[in-house]
Amino acid sequence: MGEMRYKPIGVFDSGVGGLTVVKALMELLPSESFVYLGDTANLPYGEKSAEMVRQYAFHNAQFLQEFDIKVMVVACNTASSVALEELQENFDFPVLGVIEPAAREAVRVSRSQQIGVIGTKRTIRSEMYTHKIHELSPQARVIGKACPLFVPLIEEGFLHHEATMLVAKEYLSPLANDIDTLILGCTHYPLIRDTIQSVLPHVTIVDSATSTARELRQLLLERDWLSDQLSPKRQFFATDITEHLHGLARMILPDVPSLIFEEVRLASTPVV
Amino acid sequence: MGEMRYKPIGVFDSGVGGLTVVKALMELLPSESFVYLGDTANLPYGEKSAEMVRQYAFHNAQFLQEFDIKVMVVACNTASSVALEELQENFDFPVLGVIEPAAREAVRVSRSQQIGVIGTKRTIRSEMYTHKIHELSPQARVIGKACPLFVPLIEEGFLHHEATMLVAKEYLSPLANDIDTLILGCTHYPLIRDTIQSVLPHVTIVDSATSTARELRQLLLERDWLSDQLSPKRQFFATDITEHLHGLARMILPDVPSLIFEEVRLASTPVV
Repeated sequence: MGEMRYKPIGVFDSGVGGLTVVKALMELLPSESFVYLGDTANLPYGEKSAEMVRQYAFHNAQFLQEFDIKVMVVACNTASSVALEELQENFDFPVLGVIEPAAREAVRVSRSQQIGVIGTKRTIRSEMYTHKIHELSPQARVIGKACPLFVPLIEEGFLHHEATMLVAKEYLSPLANDIDTLILGCTHYPLIRDTIQSVLPHVTIVDSATSTARELRQLLLERDWLSDQLSPKRQFFATDITEHLHGLARMILPDVPSLIFEEVRLASTPVV
Repeated sequence: MGEMRYKPIGVFDSGVGGLTVVKALMELLPSESFVYLGDTANLPYGEKSAEMVRQYAFHNAQFLQEFDIKVMVVACNTASSVALEELQENFDFPVLGVIEPAAREAVRVSRSQQIGVIGTKRTIRSEMYTHKIHELSPQARVIGKACPLFVPLIEEGFLHHEATMLVAKEYLSPLANDIDTLILGCTHYPLIRDTIQSVLPHVTIVDSATSTARELRQLLLERDWLSDQLSPKRQFFATDITEHLHGLARMILPDVPSLIFEEVRLASTPVV
């Protein structure tokens, strides 16, 4: 079992947004090695059928398995929602999604059990967070609010732009008196966490990236799998490398100057 | 030839944005009947290969042909760019795109021949307007500027929102001293024309919807095909009907309260 701790953590997402999970992992678990896979050739998963997303997720997991990972994080909300159980059944390593850790933390920290969730239109419409919260806290009241402009604003780099503040006010001000806790249900949103917090100063923000990193840390502690490497290895792969990918990656991980993606073709991934 | 004038005009687009062309046609040609087809099942065309867009365009044209149309307008920038000649060769009715009319008008009205073009990232990267302008006016200087936040802002209904004004200033203010004419190279943009004009008060705005409607009117006049019906027929079809489609359609054509889309499956359209 001694070697287990030095094996890398595998992380996949439909794109680059999942690097916010890597960022949280790097902060909480600085000695861990990672392998990241962004399935950019097939994004956005949110607009594909559940069956297709399960196939993509399976191929991504197979790719990460080749690196002899000790644990896998599904950083994508859609894949966490529809593919998690199947992945857990089919692979030997533990598999964590991003929805359950965030739901668990929100239920734990909310005093009023009036919990807000923001995300893309599809995430909110699917009620994936609502279902999970109700499993944990049947009496909770969950208010979902789709914020479809946040991702395009973030991807344009308008992180601290007044336009983003105005949009955040438009979306979020109506929630101020209804909730005491807000889940950021989209991998991109931690990038504008400060803006969101300033619109809702009295609300506790739960971001699924950080919640997931905490649960992963707990799991590694319990199994005595925590690494203590001085120079952990970090590898980044994507199924389609574009200029857009590099720009967004630099925005999320500005402190990783050597961030280089390697392109990989997952041969058996269904071609759209 | 007498009956020709009463035949409808066919219009297709990859989605609902092309209704801005219908709006311009209704203003300039109020007695004309229309058949509109939004190929919403296959949008966005801008992210498909040229060959696939040509196939979609061909199937759309076949569908409109069934209505015995007198002329067809390709309201989609991408399809106008890659499929126009093939459609003109394969169908008996005249086929107009949106790029050439706008390019022609811009070259005509610009004194400095310093012409700006705004559109989606793909439209700007493709330089479809630049090429057309240079065919007409080789000495013209064309400055393209991608405005990727405009479509999401418009689709969220933020037409007169301060956030849209701030985004427009960010994108367009740098152009103020470089151009005297600006082409709106995206079907959605006429919805925020006032905002764009207020950021660039001294620039002449050319929107491809209006330019195309004018050229169509000229064509109908020359052929003596202008209708004088009191109650022209307007039919709207889409290949995938969603809530989103209805919302956007109402935004573009608020004065057509009875706007109802009928869903149609184009059997031979390649399935993605």
